[in-house]
Formats: sequence, C-alpha cells, structure tokens
Amino acid sequence: MTNTADTNVEAVHKAAGAKPGSRRFDRRALLTGGAAGVGIGAVLGLGAALGVPALQGAGEDPAAASTDDGFGAESISCHGTHQAGIVTPPAAHVRYVAYTLLPETDKAALQRMFRIITGDVEGLTSGAAPLADSEPELAARPSALTITVGVGPALVDRVGAGRKPEWLAPLPSFERDKLSEIHGGGDLLVLLQADDPLAIAHAARMIDRDIRSFVKPHWTQQGFRQTRGAEKPGTTMRNLMGQVDGTVNPSPKEKDFSSVIWAESTGSDAWLAGGSALVVRRIRMELDTWEMVDRPGREQTIGRTLSDGAPLTGGSEHTAIDFDAKDSKGLPVIPSFAHTRRAHSTDPSERIFRRGANYDEGGESGLIFACYQQDPLRQFVPIQRRLDELDLLNEWVTHVGSAVFAILPGFKQGEQLGASLLAS
Amino acid sequence: MTNTADTNVEAVHKAAGAKPGSRRFDRRALLTGGAAGVGIGAVLGLGAALGVPALQGAGEDPAAASTDDGFGAESISCHGTHQAGIVTPPAAHVRYVAYTLLPETDKAALQRMFRIITGDVEGLTSGAAPLADSEPELAARPSALTITVGVGPALVDRVGAGRKPEWLAPLPSFERDKLSEIHGGGDLLVLLQADDPLAIAHAARMIDRDIRSFVKPHWTQQGFRQTRGAEKPGTTMRNLMGQVDGTVNPSPKEKDFSSVIWAESTGSDAWLAGGSALVVRRIRMELDTWEMVDRPGREQTIGRTLSDGAPLTGGSEHTAIDFDAKDSKGLPVIPSFAHTRRAHSTDPSERIFRRGANYDEGGESGLIFACYQQDPLRQFVPIQRRLDELDLLNEWVTHVGSAVFAILPGFKQGEQLGASLLAS
Ligand code: HEM
Ligand code: HEM
Repeated sequence: MTNTADTNVEAVHKAAGAKPGSRRFDRRALLTGGAAGVGIGAVLGLGAALGVPALQGAGEDPAAASTDDGFGAESISCHGTHQAGIVTPPAAHVRYVAYTLLPETDKAALQRMFRIITGDVEGLTSGAAPLADSEPELAARPSALTITVGVGPALVDRVGAGRKPEWLAPLPSFERDKLSEIHGGGDLLVLLQADDPLAIAHAARMIDRDIRSFVKPHWTQQGFRQTRGAEKPGTTMRNLMGQVDGTVNPSPKEKDFSSVIWAESTGSDAWLAGGSALVVRRIRMELDTWEMVDRPGREQTIGRTLSDGAPLTGGSEHTAIDFDAKDSKGLPVIPSFAHTRRAHSTDPSERIFRRGANYDEGGESGLIFACYQQDPLRQFVPIQRRLDELDLLNEWVTHVGSAVFAILPGFKQGEQLGASLLAS
Repeated sequence: MTNTADTNVEAVHKAAGAKPGSRRFDRRALLTGGAAGVGIGAVLGLGAALGVPALQGAGEDPAAASTDDGFGAESISCHGTHQAGIVTPPAAHVRYVAYTLLPETDKAALQRMFRIITGDVEGLTSGAAPLADSEPELAARPSALTITVGVGPALVDRVGAGRKPEWLAPLPSFERDKLSEIHGGGDLLVLLQADDPLAIAHAARMIDRDIRSFVKPHWTQQGFRQTRGAEKPGTTMRNLMGQVDGTVNPSPKEKDFSSVIWAESTGSDAWLAGGSALVVRRIRMELDTWEMVDRPGREQTIGRTLSDGAPLTGGSEHTAIDFDAKDSKGLPVIPSFAHTRRAHSTDPSERIFRRGANYDEGGESGLIFACYQQDPLRQFVPIQRRLDELDLLNEWVTHVGSAVFAILPGFKQGEQLGASLLAS
C-alpha cells in the first residue's frame, strides 16, 4: 500500500512473512580448545555499506509474521508522495538521530549515502532485513516502524549553492532560550518511530552502521508517548505535566492541510516539493515547581482541564475554546496569558502541525516539541515569539535544544530519497 | 488479589476506576494583566513528604478505568509474601533508580521514609494516585506497574550493626570487569517496571519527590524488552545481539524455586526472610564487531540458534541442550567455551533467576543483566567466575556497572516495607 497524504494516513499492513528456512548451518572451526574467540570471524561482507542494499531473500530465516503475533508484524509503507512518519499515526516510541557530514562527503558520496539509506528504509520498515543485517530476527517485527529523513543547511550547501530555502537555518533566537549545542542543529536527520523500542534500537543501529563512512553522530533524542494498547486508539497523548497535549492540530483530512505542511515551492528549492520543514525544540519542564501549583492554577495556565483536556469554557476535548467567554465577575474564563490563548493563531497561514513526544532521561523531563510546516519563519516563529514574550507556562518550561530540517519529499519504489535534491 | 509466589505469578486485575468527579474547579486570581506567573502558586501541601500518604479519594477525578481501554488500567497487587516485580511477568519497560542516603537520615528517618514509600507503592501500583499527586491522570493507568524496593549495605548499617548478610557488599572483582562508579553501588533501590513508559516516568518522579529529604539520586538505568502486544504473550525476549535470552531459567512453578531465590535465613539477617538478593550488572555489547561474525559463529558463541533459540543439538527453544552431543567428526556440537556451556550449572544450589532487559542510550547498547538468588556469593559469583575466565561471548561484552541489593520481603495491606529490618 502506498503512503500518500490522501489515501493512507492510517494504512498499515502485515509484513509479508518470510518462510522459516532451515534452522541449522554448516559449522566452522573453533569448536574446542584454543583461546576464546579464536576462529570466530568469518566476516560478513558489509554489502550495504559498499553498494546498493537489496532486500534479503527468504532463505535467511527471519521469524515468520503470523496474524496471532500482535502488532509486531505491522508495517507502514515508506513509499508515497510524502515520507511516512509525518502524518501517519503517532507511534509510542520516537528517536531523532542527527548527524554531521564528514568533510570528505561530497555530492557523489551523498548520492551513495542516500542510495544506502533508501535501501535500509525500504528493508527495515517492511520487516525484510537489509542484506547485511546480521540480526534479521530483530528486523522482522517492525511494529509500524517509520523512518523519516531530513537534511540540514550544511548538507544542502554541500550539494551546491543556491538551493537552500531561507528558513533552512538556525531559528532566530528568543529571549528565554537557553539552548545547548548538545541538542542543536545537525546536517542529516534520521527520525525513527515505532510501537516497539526494540524495532527502533535495531533499525537505528543498522542505518548508523551503514552511513558511518559519510557522517558522524551529532545528537540523539529519545521520546515516548503512552504505549500502544495502554489507551484507547486515537486518544490524544498526555505530556509529563499531565496535560492532554495535541488537541488543536490541523487534520490531514482538512482541505487546506497541504498548504500547512507540504512544500510546494517552484523556485530554487523546488527539489523540496512534497517535503516539509521540521522544527524540533527540546523543552525542559520544571516538574518540581509545577506540581506545587494547585489544580485550578494548572488548568488556567493552559486554559483546559487536566482531567480530559476540555476547554475551561465548557464542552469536551474537541469543543472549540470560547476565548471571549467571561465569568460572573466579567473576567475572561481563559486567562489573557494562558498558553492556548497565546499559542492560538487567528491567521490561518500561521498554523503548524504539532507532533510532540515526552522525554525523561538523565534526570531531566520535558517535551520533544516537533512541528511540521511549509515555512517555520512564517508559521512557527510568530507563535513562538508570542509565547516567548508572555505565556503562563513559561515559569515551568525552558527551550534547551533547537534544530530545523528540510524533510525530503517522499519516494516511490525504484526511486531514491533525496533524488530531487541531488539531481538539481 | 494478593501477590504470593504460589497463587498469582500472573495475577493482574483491573484497577478499580474512580468515578469521574466534577470537571470544573473554583477559579483563583491571576486571570488578567500582571506579569506571567504572578498569582499562580497556591501551593499544595506536600502531604506525602511530611506524613503518612493516604490513597486519594474518589473526588479528585482520575480517569475512570474501563474495560475497552486496553491494558492501561491493569494493576498488579503490591501486597504479598514477596514484593511484586520479581516473579511477576516481565514488563516492557524497566527503570532502576539507586539512591544514596543523606548523612542525617537516621533510623527514625528511615522509618518515615519507608512509610512514605509504602504508601506511594500502594497508591501508584493500584492506579489510585497518592494524596499529593498533582497529576492523578498520569497515575490512573498503571499498565501493570510494579515497584520493587531494595536496600544496599550502607542502609542496613545505618539501622544498626550486625544485620547485614555477608553477600550484601560489592561483588568480588572479576578479571575482565571495567566497572564505572556511574552505575555502581547504591543505598536504596527503587525498581519500576510497567508496560508503559509514561506510567514509569510518573511513578518514578512521585517517589523521587517524596523521598528527597532522605536520599539523593545516585544512578538510573532504563531498559526495555519487546513491547507488550508486539509479540505473542509469553515469548522469551530478544536481546540486542538478536539472541533469544532467558530460556533456561528456574520457573516460579518449580517445587524448589523458593530455595533458588527467597531468603530464608533465621540468623542475624532473619529480617530478610521472604526477600531476595539482587545482582544488577550493566553489560555493554560491542555490536559493531559482533555483527561482523557470520551466523554460524554467532550461534556457536551461545550454543543456540538465532532464529528461535533452539539448542544447536536440535529440538525447539525449550528442548534441553545436549552438552555431550558430538558431530560426525567427533567434535562437540556445543563448543567448549560456548556461553551456555560455561554458564550452565550442574550444581542445583548454584542456580540464579535471571530477569534482564536491553538498554540503548548515550550511544551505548547492552544488557541490564539482573538476577535474583538467595546468596550471590554461592550462586552468581561461581557462574560469573567461569564466564570471566572463558566465554566465547567475552569478545563482545564488557561489564561496566555492578550493584547488589537486598530486596525487602513483601508486605500485606496495613504493613510496611522494611518493617522487619527496622523493627530488629
Ligand atoms: C513544554 C512546552 C509545551 C507544553 C507543555 C504545551 C502544552 C500544550 C497544551 C496542553 C495545549 C492544549 C491542548 C492542545 O490543543 O494540544 C497546547 C496547545 C497549543 N500549543 Fe503548546 N505546549 C508547549 C509548547 C508549545 C510551543 C513551543 C508551541 C509553538 C511555538 C506550542 C503551540 C501550541 C499551539 C499552536 C496550541 C493550540 C492552540 C489553540 O488552541 O489554537 N506549544 N500546548
Ligand atoms: C550481555 C551479556 C550476556 C548475554 C548476551 C547473554 C546471553 C545468553 C543467551 C542468549 C543464553 C541462552 C538462552 C537462555 O537460556 O537464556 C544465555 C544463557 C545463560 N546465561 Fe547468559 N548472557 C549474558 C550474560 C550472562 C551473565 C553475566 C550470567 C551470569 C553470571 C549469565 C548466565 C546465564 C545462564 C545461567 C544461562 C543458562 C545456561 C544453561 O543453559 O543452563 N549470562 N545467556
């Protein structure tokens, strides 16, 4: 099934399970005596790192996908007008891996690198391990894995001058920013999402191995949402402040959704048509002081209830907020500096498509805020300017990391990720 | 339902869902004008940190548990002869949090601390948030959360001299150890396990907050297994080397399981009866070189197939390994230094109960090896001595962290964790 914005926002299908092959292999030497490890070492040619990765044949024995195995065998096609992982259903586990290009990675090398990535993405997301995958069993259960690839400014520059959209640069700085380079910038982004952390760990490692001659690791961020099966499907996620987070968001089913997120430029950055712009902000939460605030105070900070995310002006989660409502004393029900009031856009061309995840590692908790749009300068920046200036939430949140990537257009079977960029 | 070793290894029940209360709350001040944040701050008394935590009343509005909500509402009773989280079914997500006692935490303070922990464990694992929980919605979906509490040598010493079992000390060192203090030792262990990372993040934070006047954080390790729902229930986990890991393990249903793991001392450490000894070893894997080994080599390293974990001597996963089998050339089918051969115990008093999890963070992958036993010196140490000396696996694994804890006996409703230790 092909992943187009129109037809398969929810499309998943069972990976075609390879038939279990013969279990026994010819034995090598090493069996008795000698020092530990001697004799082990007939090295698998790292085919994928050297040439075009191919899907693995059925002989190599990945676990067969069968229908009573839960959702492990579910796969989401990586092919389509747009890459998977942007409007496909949010997964429980998320990993952003940012890389820096090695100095010697020129345009020809980038060609090779994207050919390798394309093969890995096709293999890993379909549950068919890439040729050089030494643990096909770990690849056989993609659990709705998607791998979404983006490029930073330096990679586009490496291809040649004059191709970069204006917004593909570090964001303008905001007053309250406390950014650290630890989670900032990046030349290449590999975004892995799946309902199983094992699928992500394995896929991330395979890709990492296969592109190490072109790039070096820069940063990684791991995030999560309430796990699949713990909550009714389709329930909006809760962040670590306890809030229902993600309610007001443009829907891929809306008529003008395309103009919110998909690049449609015809100028020097026409190579991006069908792609998108991603802003990733690592936002730390001060939960120790947040939880000292009483419940009404916490609800007014957002303008919505904690219990189910309904507006304080009444109704249920998806009822529109009545920003004009007044209480019996004539005061606004939604405080002037409530997060939703400040974040709310009256200008439709300013809307963003949010897709955040929680993080909780190294003694720090927060939100990996992520949003997709056509142009962060037109969409994300004005919203963030308002929040940066005044937002009740600011007392408990601090932006500590920031990155912007051009998410490549989708690709069809037989095509390659990044083809339009590299062809130009 | 009570968690005893005999009756409810698999017992889970739906948490009694509190009725949704009224959604709206009286409003406070702060609504218009003034600087952001002014007026927010009616501080919730941190009841749990100061006195006996109580289960929260139904008024405070946690999300109701209903049967069509997936497994989010599942809870495992924390009460029983033994603590939950040891023989209860392995969860998808695991977090070990080790603390160091503050100098001023004396026996009386420990009494208070364990009273607080007991209340938090009861509340959080049942889905009823502790009194001072400001995000009851995050606590309402425990997703089979267990919280298991252990103590290190310094804590037992703090209670008074002469109570420490001999093994409650750093392990003897092994030749190949490359231990770092970053993941070593600890005075108090809080082990959280659940099928949802959000449940763990919230529960860990609540406990952390409530005991911060007694302890300071020492180390945290986060681990995972294939997620619930991705694989058939009861399937043995795979580690990041791609191996089926956990096949040969004493079963809680065995007649002599008790004598493998449950403390039954009647001496100076009689306070531990019903508890256990936990060894936690952080073991780094060198996956880059591991995957260069061909498949037969990797299978011989363990003595089992990669495809389904069956012994190389035939059969399926749970067939016993035939360590005496020879091939046509008269060589042993299971190499002399294969991991299973070296780890295998012919002495039944040496057996351990393994409960590992994968880790993959900070650019490092490996196994959070954990095992329960009566006495690590009699059980874990001789096995690890053999492996340390000769194990084909050694070329790709390195022990980088080590800790030993006395896991406290279980407790009944109305009783307290640590009561026997503190009473003595
Ligand atoms: C840790 C930081 C943040 C937290 C905890 C947070 C939380 C929330 C919550 C609970 C809502 C209401 C539910 C919903 O509609 O999703 C909301 C709405 C929203 N947030 Fe945030 N948010 C954060 C940062 C940001 C940032 C950085 C932006 C963009 C610059 C942003 C933009 C929005 C928008 C556009 C809405 C919808 C407003 C409307 O009702 O029209 N948020 N946020
Ligand atoms: C990263 C390090 C390790 C890995 C990857 C590993 C992996 C495995 C695998 C794949 C098996 C076979 C399947 C099974 O029965 O579970 C196994 C068996 C076993 N391992 Fe390990 N292991 C590691 C470390 C250890 C350590 C440190 C110990 C204890 C000191 C240990 C003790 C055992 C035992 C007792 C068995 C069962 C042996 C038998 O067949 O009787 N392992 N291990």
